[in-house]
Amino acid sequence: MADLITVEDPDDPRLSDYTGLTDVELRRRREPAEGLFIAEGEKVIRRARDAGYAMRSMLLSAKWIDTMRDVIDELPAPVYAVSPELAERVTGYHVHRGALASMQRKPLPTAAELLTSARRVAVMESVNDHTNIGAIFRSAAALGMDAVLLSPDCADPLYRRSVKVSMGAVFSVPYARLEGWPKGLETVREAGFRLLALTPDEKATVIDDARPHRLDRVALMLGAEGEGLSTRALRAADEWVRIPMAHGVDSLNVGAAAAVAFYAVATGRPGA
Amino acid sequence: MADLITVEDPDDPRLSDYTGLTDVELRRRREPAEGLFIAEGEKVIRRARDAGYAMRSMLLSAKWIDTMRDVIDELPAPVYAVSPELAERVTGYHVHRGALASMQRKPLPTAAELLTSARRVAVMESVNDHTNIGAIFRSAAALGMDAVLLSPDCADPLYRRSVKVSMGAVFSVPYARLEGWPKGLETVREAGFRLLALTPDEKATVIDDARPHRLDRVALMLGAEGEGLSTRALRAADEWVRIPMAHGVDSLNVGAAAAVAFYAVATGRPGA
Repeated sequence: MADLITVEDPDDPRLSDYTGLTDVELRRRREPAEGLFIAEGEKVIRRARDAGYAMRSMLLSAKWIDTMRDVIDELPAPVYAVSPELAERVTGYHVHRGALASMQRKPLPTAAELLTSARRVAVMESVNDHTNIGAIFRSAAALGMDAVLLSPDCADPLYRRSVKVSMGAVFSVPYARLEGWPKGLETVREAGFRLLALTPDEKATVIDDARPHRLDRVALMLGAEGEGLSTRALRAADEWVRIPMAHGVDSLNVGAAAAVAFYAVATGRPGA
Repeated sequence: MADLITVEDPDDPRLSDYTGLTDVELRRRREPAEGLFIAEGEKVIRRARDAGYAMRSMLLSAKWIDTMRDVIDELPAPVYAVSPELAERVTGYHVHRGALASMQRKPLPTAAELLTSARRVAVMESVNDHTNIGAIFRSAAALGMDAVLLSPDCADPLYRRSVKVSMGAVFSVPYARLEGWPKGLETVREAGFRLLALTPDEKATVIDDARPHRLDRVALMLGAEGEGLSTRALRAADEWVRIPMAHGVDSLNVGAAAAVAFYAVATGRPGA
């Protein structure tokens, strides 16, 4: 059972995992370096725990202690009970979900490891918006993608905002970072995947016509909101696919495009 | 050509269309009552104009005057040139897109009018999040939905945030409000539409199995994030359809679900 420790000093060094949570740049550097990430709110904390992440500590306001009692009872780590005011002073914002946990990262698998058992993978290039990363993981989980591969410059799926938007799907969909880009795509091809690049380019095949749900192994490549996939990524693909768009519309947002494309490549769809 | 008027007093009554833009509750009441809405940023302002909305005025910081010169030259309405500081004092936020326009609303068509020529319509129940409304319009435009029908309690598609997230798609996809809910759905059925209710319920037909892209006229009903469609809305539908979900996932977010469903009902898809 966890030690339940009441903390009243915002400078207490035991709270250092939780300081300056609104400083994105700081946290982006600190969290991977220190091997931690922050889970926020009861549901997300439970999902992180259920996915096998170890907890370093929790920070709770008093009224959340009862709700989290079962988690606390099993926890071999300290729980800091604080007032909402102190939570705000430490983190930099009003923690309306009332519960934060500092979780220990796990070593990421390699892409090659993930690819041995996967059949449907999403490959993201330069998606560095935390909201988009989270939304894409949520759709990937719901629509049956087996894994996500990230180019080296993609944002961190375990950043607080990504975790929250994903509703914890970043814990359930395994992911890896490719080493080198687009060179890392070779690993994917060598594992037997057909690389489909999603692009609005008129020269691309309409995605259903490519019959991607009939392919044994599909890696669906997605670029960032706005620019889309880079020329070198497009060159490295086996085939370009597009979602048919109504006249005069630029494009779907990356979250919507990803959801449609995941749906289109899902195995077991009828017809076509 | 517009009068270009330099304004230096934040309390100048000519700027009243732009006051308190960050006060959502205030603006939600004021804008429909006063028959205006706010377009933000060059692209969105141009799209509103191209869609035939009349401009009441523009509010520009000096460096945007050249960029908007062609719009100004044709405009039979005043253009207020202000400093970025004054723009912030009036609106309540730092207007980093530098250009705002107050546009005149147009009378909405009735649902019956829209339904005469449409074949694919989205029907939204109680979607009162401005970001979600905007995202759904953007996907509706891209994926070829002909019109959107709103339950009486849906949020305003012309609210600034909705307009922005939609990338102006709220100007290009015609929409109407149903009178009465779910009673208003009768109008839709009488116009020859099959009412498909999107739900995660296991009893629903997998959406592709319902072969919705083969139907002549489809009205796809969507509920709000979280709750989904109400029981009475589900009862009023002709058929329930669901997007197949991977095991253990609650659901897609409403924007992703809408995009997938719009794709599934689009005419002209191959196969199935």
